[in-house]
Amino acid sequence: MKVSATVKGCPERAVLEHLTSTWGVLVLGELACGTRRFSELRRAIDGVSEKMLTQTLRVLERDGFVRREAYPVIPPRVDYALTALGTEAAARVRALSDWTAEHVVEVTAAQRAYDEAS
Amino acid sequence: MKVSATVKGCPERAVLEHLTSTWGVLVLGELACGTRRFSELRRAIDGVSEKMLTQTLRVLERDGFVRREAYPVIPPRVDYALTALGTEAAARVRALSDWTAEHVVEVTAAQRAYDEAS
Repeated sequence: MKVSATVKGCPERAVLEHLTSTWGVLVLGELACGTRRFSELRRAIDGVSEKMLTQTLRVLERDGFVRREAYPVIPPRVDYALTALGTEAAARVRALSDWTAEHVVEVTAAQRAYDEAS
Repeated sequence: MKVSATVKGCPERAVLEHLTSTWGVLVLGELACGTRRFSELRRAIDGVSEKMLTQTLRVLERDGFVRREAYPVIPPRVDYALTALGTEAAARVRALSDWTAEHVVEVTAAQRAYDEAS
């Protein structure tokens, strides 16, 4: 295990946090289905504010996971899509978040048992 | 994508955060190699404080990912190991963190290019 690589403040740690942030997971999951406009992402992702979505997309774009394409039309249109790197990352994020979703009942049962025993 | 399941405050979101927390990732990675005493984990995980390690292990134990075994000996001995559920989770966390480690150079290059262009 590359322990030294995961100490706080190192780039890997930051990237992992971008990928697994609340909105990061959802944006990657949504873009894994195809190119989306900003407004489509906003509608698809329950509870995200315009500000948080903008911020999340900017971080993922800066990391090279998301490609942003702005069209000079009225009203303005901005498309977002996964890059090749982003597609690879999204697959792994999704494997983990899907697994978590599938096992949340077991985890919740474990939590209840732990709390009752302590 | 199960968007409704990932809104803040829902159990899945919390579990995903436990699994991908700075110390969560490292503890799961270390325990994936086998049973460890508290002191062994502390030594193996660069920079973790006793308090943070205790807290991380407690959260993972409560979720049902880690099993804690205390032996009534002097000095006290406490072993930690992954449960079957924890082994499954750890494999997916590791796939993601290994991928991130392998691609950090590409991400860092993308970040530099983004910063120079903006």
